[in-house]
Amino acid sequence: MRSVVREAKLCGKMDGGVANNMMDMDQDSRKRLCFADGRRKVDYVLVYHYRKRSSVRGSPSQHRLSIISNGSYPLGVEEKDQEGGKDEPAEVVVDVGPPDPADGEKIMIREEFEGNLKDAGLEIEHDKENKAHGHAFIRLHAPWQVLSREAEFLKIKVPTKKSYELREEKGLAATMNEVWRKLNQPFQPKVPHQEQEHSRTKFLSHCFSRDKLHLYGAFYKYQPVDLIRKYFGEKIGLYFAWLGVYTQLLIPASVVGIIVFFYGWATVETNIPSQEMCDEDQNFTMCPLCDRACDYWHLSTACGTARASHLFDNPATVFFAIFMSLWAAMFLEHWKRRQISLNYSWDLTGMEEEEVHSHTYIVALCYSMLTTEDKKITLNVFLPSQTGHEKLTWRDRLPGYLINISSILFMFGVTCSAVFSVIIYRITISALMAMSPDPEVKSNVRVTVTATAVIINLVVILILDEIYGMVAAWLTELEIPKTETNFEERLILKAFLLKFMNAYAPIFYVAFFKGRFAGRPGDYVYVFNDYRMEECAPGGCLIELCIQLSIIMLGKQLIQNNIFEIGIPKLKKLCRTLKDKERAPKEIVEQPGRRQQWHLDYDLEPFDGLTPEYMEMIIQFGFVSLFVASFPLAPLFALLNNVIEIRLDAKKFVTELRRPDAIRAKDIGIWYNILSGLGKFSVIINAFVISFTSDFIPRLVYQYMYSETGTMHGFINHTLSYFNVSNFKPGTVPSITSLGKDITFCRYKDYREPPWSTEPYQFSKQYWSVLAARLGFVILFQNLVITMSMLVAWVIPDVPKNISEQLKKEKTLLVDVFLNEEKEKLQLIQSLFSRDLTQEQQEELKVSDQTSLSVSHTYLKRLVLTRPHISTSLCGKICITLPKCSHKERRRNFYSHCSIVDAAAMS
Amino acid sequence: MRSVVREAKLCGKMDGGVANNMMDMDQDSRKRLCFADGRRKVDYVLVYHYRKRSSVRGSPSQHRLSIISNGSYPLGVEEKDQEGGKDEPAEVVVDVGPPDPADGEKIMIREEFEGNLKDAGLEIEHDKENKAHGHAFIRLHAPWQVLSREAEFLKIKVPTKKSYELREEKGLAATMNEVWRKLNQPFQPKVPHQEQEHSRTKFLSHCFSRDKLHLYGAFYKYQPVDLIRKYFGEKIGLYFAWLGVYTQLLIPASVVGIIVFFYGWATVETNIPSQEMCDEDQNFTMCPLCDRACDYWHLSTACGTARASHLFDNPATVFFAIFMSLWAAMFLEHWKRRQISLNYSWDLTGMEEEEVHSHTYIVALCYSMLTTEDKKITLNVFLPSQTGHEKLTWRDRLPGYLINISSILFMFGVTCSAVFSVIIYRITISALMAMSPDPEVKSNVRVTVTATAVIINLVVILILDEIYGMVAAWLTELEIPKTETNFEERLILKAFLLKFMNAYAPIFYVAFFKGRFAGRPGDYVYVFNDYRMEECAPGGCLIELCIQLSIIMLGKQLIQNNIFEIGIPKLKKLCRTLKDKERAPKEIVEQPGRRQQWHLDYDLEPFDGLTPEYMEMIIQFGFVSLFVASFPLAPLFALLNNVIEIRLDAKKFVTELRRPDAIRAKDIGIWYNILSGLGKFSVIINAFVISFTSDFIPRLVYQYMYSETGTMHGFINHTLSYFNVSNFKPGTVPSITSLGKDITFCRYKDYREPPWSTEPYQFSKQYWSVLAARLGFVILFQNLVITMSMLVAWVIPDVPKNISEQLKKEKTLLVDVFLNEEKEKLQLIQSLFSRDLTQEQQEELKVSDQTSLSVSHTYLKRLVLTRPHISTSLCGKICITLPKCSHKERRRNFYSHCSIVDAAAMS
Repeated sequence: MRSVVREAKLCGKMDGGVANNMMDMDQDSRKRLCFADGRRKVDYVLVYHYRKRSSVRGSPSQHRLSIISNGSYPLGVEEKDQEGGKDEPAEVVVDVGPPDPADGEKIMIREEFEGNLKDAGLEIEHDKENKAHGHAFIRLHAPWQVLSREAEFLKIKVPTKKSYELREEKGLAATMNEVWRKLNQPFQPKVPHQEQEHSRTKFLSHCFSRDKLHLYGAFYKYQPVDLIRKYFGEKIGLYFAWLGVYTQLLIPASVVGIIVFFYGWATVETNIPSQEMCDEDQNFTMCPLCDRACDYWHLSTACGTARASHLFDNPATVFFAIFMSLWAAMFLEHWKRRQISLNYSWDLTGMEEEEVHSHTYIVALCYSMLTTEDKKITLNVFLPSQTGHEKLTWRDRLPGYLINISSILFMFGVTCSAVFSVIIYRITISALMAMSPDPEVKSNVRVTVTATAVIINLVVILILDEIYGMVAAWLTELEIPKTETNFEERLILKAFLLKFMNAYAPIFYVAFFKGRFAGRPGDYVYVFNDYRMEECAPGGCLIELCIQLSIIMLGKQLIQNNIFEIGIPKLKKLCRTLKDKERAPKEIVEQPGRRQQWHLDYDLEPFDGLTPEYMEMIIQFGFVSLFVASFPLAPLFALLNNVIEIRLDAKKFVTELRRPDAIRAKDIGIWYNILSGLGKFSVIINAFVISFTSDFIPRLVYQYMYSETGTMHGFINHTLSYFNVSNFKPGTVPSITSLGKDITFCRYKDYREPPWSTEPYQFSKQYWSVLAARLGFVILFQNLVITMSMLVAWVIPDVPKNISEQLKKEKTLLVDVFLNEEKEKLQLIQSLFSRDLTQEQQEELKVSDQTSLSVSHTYLKRLVLTRPHISTSLCGKICITLPKCSHKERRRNFYSHCSIVDAAAMS
Repeated sequence: MRSVVREAKLCGKMDGGVANNMMDMDQDSRKRLCFADGRRKVDYVLVYHYRKRSSVRGSPSQHRLSIISNGSYPLGVEEKDQEGGKDEPAEVVVDVGPPDPADGEKIMIREEFEGNLKDAGLEIEHDKENKAHGHAFIRLHAPWQVLSREAEFLKIKVPTKKSYELREEKGLAATMNEVWRKLNQPFQPKVPHQEQEHSRTKFLSHCFSRDKLHLYGAFYKYQPVDLIRKYFGEKIGLYFAWLGVYTQLLIPASVVGIIVFFYGWATVETNIPSQEMCDEDQNFTMCPLCDRACDYWHLSTACGTARASHLFDNPATVFFAIFMSLWAAMFLEHWKRRQISLNYSWDLTGMEEEEVHSHTYIVALCYSMLTTEDKKITLNVFLPSQTGHEKLTWRDRLPGYLINISSILFMFGVTCSAVFSVIIYRITISALMAMSPDPEVKSNVRVTVTATAVIINLVVILILDEIYGMVAAWLTELEIPKTETNFEERLILKAFLLKFMNAYAPIFYVAFFKGRFAGRPGDYVYVFNDYRMEECAPGGCLIELCIQLSIIMLGKQLIQNNIFEIGIPKLKKLCRTLKDKERAPKEIVEQPGRRQQWHLDYDLEPFDGLTPEYMEMIIQFGFVSLFVASFPLAPLFALLNNVIEIRLDAKKFVTELRRPDAIRAKDIGIWYNILSGLGKFSVIINAFVISFTSDFIPRLVYQYMYSETGTMHGFINHTLSYFNVSNFKPGTVPSITSLGKDITFCRYKDYREPPWSTEPYQFSKQYWSVLAARLGFVILFQNLVITMSMLVAWVIPDVPKNISEQLKKEKTLLVDVFLNEEKEKLQLIQSLFSRDLTQEQQEELKVSDQTSLSVSHTYLKRLVLTRPHISTSLCGKICITLPKCSHKERRRNFYSHCSIVDAAAMS
């Protein structure tokens, strides 16, 4: 009763102090958030669509459109909307047409549901106007009693009245902290400070005072994570916190990436291999790039790509790859710490996950029973509470699993063929363009083909991404996971698998396969008998990988952020509005000024879950970690994207989506595993990129094994094999040639025996030694980096020191508080009851307790020696022994568990 | 009061039912375990040594040798020993000589300690006889009140009266279970069944009825882990459970190992390489094995080792290495599940680790303060409770760390030089023996040298093992870890590092270094200018690795088990007895018949902790996993050892050590990490053993790249390079030769260019291709096996299904039980108090609660939709929305956290 009065103060009018803080909240909008009585707050709104012909007649229970109220209304409160009955519920029965059986059932379901809500203690308010058809809103209010009961169920921690001081650090550390705090000041959002968390005034002030921050004024500030959590719940709070940590850690990665890039830029002039390539005196005549149509060419014409490729293919890249692998490990560790800190400050430490049966599971259960038993059985039978013991057999699940496996294999096939189609496109278009008589077309072959192909790739990726998202959801429903958590995990895993494959397949192709199956002059590999397999650019495959990666990464982020995340929701909303208008062209225009808050909210998009947001970031994390050896600027682009992304996401959550249901969560769930898996995978991928895609290893091998001067001079010559032009297959010799008249040998990039050796065109000893060095590097890199990552993870403690100290302190204090309280209570109860209970009853009570406590006997040592107030003299040495069973006993039994302790407690 | 009476029943005489179960417990030994009053049970015994001249005079507090009693004794109980005062404590002051200040301080410390024990509610009994000097025993009894208080502190779970039925499985699974249970029956120890755990009778019966099992009657049975835990506590219980799981899982590993071994045995006749080696027609003349003294030799003379090496070096070994890596992953997963099951059945699920300051930390804290402040400060200041805020600075810790690092490096050096010394021994002895004129000595060179060297290695390992154990303890004390857990972890890590290195250094040498730095004919590597580096036997290094591994493993186990674990403790005990006798030659003989249980217990060895037991097993696990590719029988030997080891350990714990203090533990701590680290390390080691130590890869490369027939024929010829004998350095040609007269080329095992090539004796193309294949295999093996292990770990759920189901059920039931109880209590209290409290007070009460509960508002959805009794109609679809702040608000703020929910709760 009393609690109703208090809430009425908010919903009706304010008292002094509160009113000051709520000055800028307009009266009207406040009104909207209350029941018609203006007192009880609307906590939740249910919506259903009803039709004109809906009827009640003939249904077993009566239908009431009523305002249910079980509170009494004190005077002195404006009640301008209160047209419904005050104490007797208004009863309106609508009868417009013949009953529709489907509608009738729906009404039954709804009524049962509402009845259950009332039984659970909730208060319900229906719309009082009765439109012919449209949306009906049911508003719920949860009274204090219900809330406290549920809090107990959920084991929600609450602050006790006992408080304690956090220890201040002294000396250097404190000064450093202070300096850091000052430096950080401008980046802190203007919200009440964290420390005020437990003071009462904070709740009031943080609600309506954040009116100075807006999108681009706040992009460089920290996020008010605690407020996000308060409004949206822990799960969304954790997402934003995670995004924050990720973005923050991208800053050092970007800085190092930029340095690495500039190192390449600064050393390009002094780099001997690219100098040699650009040196026109070293007249390397290369074999033609295509059959017949192409001419021999001079290597110095590829000077540009050689210089460009040095930007990304230099020794600093190796360092950067190692750095980024450690960065990934550090990021995960850092997040673990942050998560634990959040768990602590959000009082989630003792939280236990609750299992909720998934919707698909229940439906499947219903269905499986319906098919075996009477179809007319009432729906009530299929509730999880009654069917808790029922299980789906493997026969129910088998078809789902089979479809799953085959679909995923099919999707793999689709992705691979998409990649292959683009390859075919590239091969054919470049062959066709090379045959074109126009010299301008000819000179732009590579640029045109590469650019168009990557764009096609990008478009395919974006389209398949959407399709795969839907397919994953469909497949997961077929699997019928038992709980919601399970459902989500499986969905995420599948979606991740498909989308990851989709986004990375073309990149993997360029990194590890392109140019490796092209064959050699005189023995090229052909597809469709006519088209030669493509080779990498003369500068190496790394520059192509870099182009591919940057275009896909940037394109995906820009297009998905702008078009998909902002455009499509707007479009959807428009569609829905149009649809609604079509359906009910009259009602939509009635009383626009009187539309309630819930009408406005209903117009917003429903919340789809965090999966797409996380997925986008995880795929981005892949770009940042997996192929970072080939594109050191990836972290920078990711950083720029994320700074905007955080704000866009926040704006979307606050203004464009319905308020999501708050969900408690201790961690980010399976995403952490995916991140950690990606981190591990990135090590091996980077090892392969450095050793196989880049020229790092061949250069090292040349310098230390083959170079006579010990420098890189002569490297280019060393990497080029000789080909005797007389060995060309008939019909593949260049038809028109300006260089080829007096040429006997052309060169190609490979380690093969020269035509004059005993085994012409076989792999040379150099090939095998470079291969061995490459493989050796992979082993070294992988194991070194994994060991270092493990070391990083081991050195950084999971629980921040201050948190663990506070936890310890809190525990001690809680024990004290509760012990005192318990003692008082016990004394009180004893004094009250001792007269009523007989001696026997008391004894009985004691014995049953004693039995169960026998175990604690064995922990006596702790009691004796470790309680601080007992062991005052630990510096002295006392020999300790526990009594055992007698020797005679011991000799008789091998396992002589004559634990006297246990026995005693039982007597 | 009542509890004392009940205990007296045990200590004094029994009532009917209890007596039956304790029939076989002799009256006398039972008496021994009670206080002199025959009623209160001895729970704990403290011992100290006092000296003749000990005095009390002048000490601030009085000394009392007294029987403290705070219970009243009912009649009808024999009290034959009760000579001390009944209600007034007997006070005896001994004054024999002049006061010794050190003794006086000790007495003060002791008195303070005893006083604190009494304050904590414990009851204390002193010896009543006062010998001149010797051991004094203080017996403690913990009354019921103390136990219950401590149980609350430790959050010990107790069974409630509510019980539930576990669901029976039906169908095939149940039948399978039944069959399995039947098959298992003979292996179950004859102890009361697990299910009876919570019945009251069990406690009584399991104490004294295990008289039929003894050592060799029980070795094939499961261990009674629950009983072990009851008597020794969780920590030791977990050790035995872990040992059980490990031993059990060694069975399949042994079986597969034996199969692999027999596969090698069966295929040795059909193996082409060993046939070729034994074929005397293929007259390979090998280069001499030592300078001058050795002659050229025919490869067919090494036929024996070639055949032996096939036993361990065959394709099945590769399979076995993969199998064992997966086995290790499986073992860890299996143990995790077992651990969780044990946690559940031992009610440890909610347990929180308690931090106990380590002894060294406190002493160091005392010391650091003593040096800075007044030395005369009383000891009381240095208590952890008062000095909780004090910290050791890095200046206190630095010397410890420095000594640590340098000592560990020094130990590394010691181990390496030990290994190197043995190498020198081998090289010199074989050179000397080769020069011996006696042909018999010459022919036995290899056998003699290998055998003696391995034995020297073994002895060195055993000696260093003991030293390193002590060094690790010393180093850890220097580090001054803060808590006991910390102390133990660091000690274990250090000891493991040193002992692991010690045990494996010679094995690593043989596996990866032996024979790789020997050079080639004409360019051998010499140590000390005179002795050629040793090479592997002609059969390959694998057979030597196998010999080394098996001797060290078996020798270490046999010697450590028999001599160190059984012999040395007995020796120590003898020493101690002799010492005691020397010290007090008279008292030791007085009244041998009247010696109490605690006198007998005191004669036993004190318990040293589980570290040595675990360490032994972990080193063994290393033998089983790390080099298993070279010795498939390792699991079998480990299994045989462990079956005995479990029983020996059990016997030792029960009969030869003082009863250890029970320690609660949820897991095996850092040992799990070490195990998992070893598992990962074993993958890479096995990869290297297979690809570099064995001949597996060269054979594959030959068969698929070089063999003209596609078979292994010609392999031996392919692996042998040519050497032109005229290229021998002067003085290294065999002096006396029977074969070498008409020889121009001798052969040696390596891939090098022949003398007639352009680059004579350089590594050939074959060398590089084999190297590349070896490295490629390492990458493939490592990544494949790691992926498979992760898959295994992922597929096996950590929490067994039945446990997770039971946990869920228990939670639901607990909620119900407590809700009902709470309701009743609340009603009672309300009815009692409602009259006394004013309206205002009640309101105040409500408001403060309400504030803290605001968070639960946001979880309304759970309340509305997920409680089974509410959501009866989930099959129907209802659209849900949560109210948001007004649009106007939202537009104004970017983060418009106008969370009405929070605001409302505050009003």
